[in-house]
Amino acid sequence: MKVVKFGGSSLASGAQLEKVFQIVTADPARKAVVVSAPGKRFSDDTKVTDLLIRCAEHYLQKGAAPELAEAVIERYAAIAHELDLDPSIIERIRRDLFALLNSSKANPDQYMDAVKASGEDNNAKLIAAYFRRQGVKAEYVSPKEAGLFVTNEPGSAQVLPESYDHLYRLRNREGLIIFPGFFGYTKENEIVTFSRSGSDITGSILANGLKADLYENFTDVDAVYSVNPSIVQHPKEINELTYREMRELSYAGFSVFHDEALIPAFRAGIPVQIKNTNNPDAKGTRVVSSRDNTNGPVIGIASDTGFCSIYISKYLMNREIGFGRKALHILEEEGLTYEHVPSGIDDITIILRHNQMDLELEEKLVTRLKQELQADEVTVRHNLALIMVVGEAMRHNVGTTARASKALSGAGVNIEMINQGSSEVSMMFGVKEEQEKHAVRALYDEFFAGVLLS
Amino acid sequence: MKVVKFGGSSLASGAQLEKVFQIVTADPARKAVVVSAPGKRFSDDTKVTDLLIRCAEHYLQKGAAPELAEAVIERYAAIAHELDLDPSIIERIRRDLFALLNSSKANPDQYMDAVKASGEDNNAKLIAAYFRRQGVKAEYVSPKEAGLFVTNEPGSAQVLPESYDHLYRLRNREGLIIFPGFFGYTKENEIVTFSRSGSDITGSILANGLKADLYENFTDVDAVYSVNPSIVQHPKEINELTYREMRELSYAGFSVFHDEALIPAFRAGIPVQIKNTNNPDAKGTRVVSSRDNTNGPVIGIASDTGFCSIYISKYLMNREIGFGRKALHILEEEGLTYEHVPSGIDDITIILRHNQMDLELEEKLVTRLKQELQADEVTVRHNLALIMVVGEAMRHNVGTTARASKALSGAGVNIEMINQGSSEVSMMFGVKEEQEKHAVRALYDEFFAGVLLS
Repeated sequence: MKVVKFGGSSLASGAQLEKVFQIVTADPARKAVVVSAPGKRFSDDTKVTDLLIRCAEHYLQKGAAPELAEAVIERYAAIAHELDLDPSIIERIRRDLFALLNSSKANPDQYMDAVKASGEDNNAKLIAAYFRRQGVKAEYVSPKEAGLFVTNEPGSAQVLPESYDHLYRLRNREGLIIFPGFFGYTKENEIVTFSRSGSDITGSILANGLKADLYENFTDVDAVYSVNPSIVQHPKEINELTYREMRELSYAGFSVFHDEALIPAFRAGIPVQIKNTNNPDAKGTRVVSSRDNTNGPVIGIASDTGFCSIYISKYLMNREIGFGRKALHILEEEGLTYEHVPSGIDDITIILRHNQMDLELEEKLVTRLKQELQADEVTVRHNLALIMVVGEAMRHNVGTTARASKALSGAGVNIEMINQGSSEVSMMFGVKEEQEKHAVRALYDEFFAGVLLS
Repeated sequence: MKVVKFGGSSLASGAQLEKVFQIVTADPARKAVVVSAPGKRFSDDTKVTDLLIRCAEHYLQKGAAPELAEAVIERYAAIAHELDLDPSIIERIRRDLFALLNSSKANPDQYMDAVKASGEDNNAKLIAAYFRRQGVKAEYVSPKEAGLFVTNEPGSAQVLPESYDHLYRLRNREGLIIFPGFFGYTKENEIVTFSRSGSDITGSILANGLKADLYENFTDVDAVYSVNPSIVQHPKEINELTYREMRELSYAGFSVFHDEALIPAFRAGIPVQIKNTNNPDAKGTRVVSSRDNTNGPVIGIASDTGFCSIYISKYLMNREIGFGRKALHILEEEGLTYEHVPSGIDDITIILRHNQMDLELEEKLVTRLKQELQADEVTVRHNLALIMVVGEAMRHNVGTTARASKALSGAGVNIEMINQGSSEVSMMFGVKEEQEKHAVRALYDEFFAGVLLS
């Protein structure tokens, strides 16, 4: 039994829904279909979710704006028209949306969440109607009815554990289940949405609850690439990678979806298959618990910019018990999260994402670190990029470090930092931002030139 | 004006004292001479300090043992006889030592410190007598008389800041000052010793207090080597290195003396010259604040064994604010100091010296880390060696990492950990203990084969 999830671009038009129908019905194991709101039809298009946010903000701040609501309804109407569905479905969507927009705004966060969630909810109803019109037994199932309960954290709901048992009962239903992604209900019957990639999270929760054999995630790319295609043209595709590899690659801003979405599936050991709605015959990428390491030590390279480093030095620091802990505590008190803490004998460096700090906070932090730690020197360096070189086989492969650092030095890249030795599946290099792309290309050439990934 | 310090092996016999006399009097700038207790005359010999410790322990635990005291006195007597000194000096040493051994044992730590310190104190008196017999104006100066005050921490005294002003007054004395190393006095008039390399510390304090131009440290090797000679035969000598380089090398169990001894000289910016009493014409090694980097990126390689790593993994760790700080706090509560904390995304590894933990503490620590951090996995790995590759020019030298890691992989050494990016003058590799020597040789070959150090 499979849970299938379709992203917004796979559901943006009637033509796309026809593909979805073909895919779902081609395999009788596909039982539950999790759907997003209609996404972009072309690159300048606006997603329904973004239209809804704009609409809710207007209703909250400036009052009614029926023309904004109509822009949302028009998207569904276009699909219904393209598929020749009964117009009554659009009337129902219009009625529901206006009722929602005119409902209580006492709690703006909850209001916003409910309006946002309607994008998925209405799409699920429309898709169920379309499937039935095609002669397939298919039923819209509401998260409330299914018992998908979540915490009351608007925009970042967490699933409540009992939901999995509730969802398991959906197995007994006949026919296809069409389930809206992105949201659940609190015990107090409020709609609350998940964080970004919310529909991926719903799919993952359903796969876990239904004890699916596979979670298929249909999107608009053929596969996860071994490196960012905007840095390296036509990079190799990854056909299989482990959860750990996926997570390390995701960390540095890489990947098809937000890795946190995978957790429920990961916890249940369910493989995740990433496929392309527009090219379902492509092999795609499978995320698994373990894999054979037959393709060299490295499976992917990811990079991200926007980091800075805080260098703290103090003579005889390493004799001072608690120095590192105190430094980290100061960061915590300032609400900052850090990424890594390489250390020398009399110095530590704290690597963090720079967008957490404005100049004022940065100055305050430097002052606190200097004064409270009685440090000899505290220096902040900006514009650091981190590059992750990822692969399960890496740790036990003598020479991977040498190959990577040789590739970087051969390309004239100075390595500002190396973090290796904790993760078993990755190695991290810090370089100056202006050298990021150059460095990634050099690493790609070293590890992927001539290698066929299977 | 120079402060000169001689180590125990330079003062072990009359023949050695003759060399010391020649050295001191060859340069009129040599004003203050700091002396250790007589050291080993041959490899199986016992240092006077060790004889004194044995003696004090017997007096403390089992009562009087005049034969142990006589073994100490015999060492001084042999020197006095060899140099044809007046026997009255030995009578005075005997009288003082027995008075000390029979003094109050109410505070065993203080008793031990006073007995240990007598080794240096009596040697200073004897050497002053010898210098005077040779027709040189020379005077024994007691740390009490000179105002060298310290904290009351037996075995690890810290100099009190006012001492430096007191010591400066010694500049007005005529003739040579013969000063016993290793101890000072508390404000309550108790003798307290410094930690290991205590005479080096005294010399460094005197150099600072006297505002010397140079601190000469005479020992029994020609120079600091670029690598441990028990690992690489006939390694290159280092003729000049910076304090920072010295400290990084010392950290991994390398060096002629304990780096902490250098602090007072370092704070005053006084260069330290290491020379060989037995070969005073050899160039030796100079420790300076800054140097020209004309000899390639690496100046020395040091290594040490006995480390272990504690690997802590928890899915989504990096979203958890304060995780690293909490882990370090648990170590602190257990009285453990750590060396480095490399981190992955969902894991951190804490590197520490293994001799701090017995099996019981190790098990307790693992349990605490697992429970209090709710970690998925906590694993301790033993028998890790750390290798430091040190050099001021390293950081801005593209390719040093590549050369080092290539040398290691070429030698079949798996790099368990790399710590690079905080210290500007070193790079650290973690390898399995059984590969330590192999790894050090490979690095030495890479960076020193064919290189002449100046």
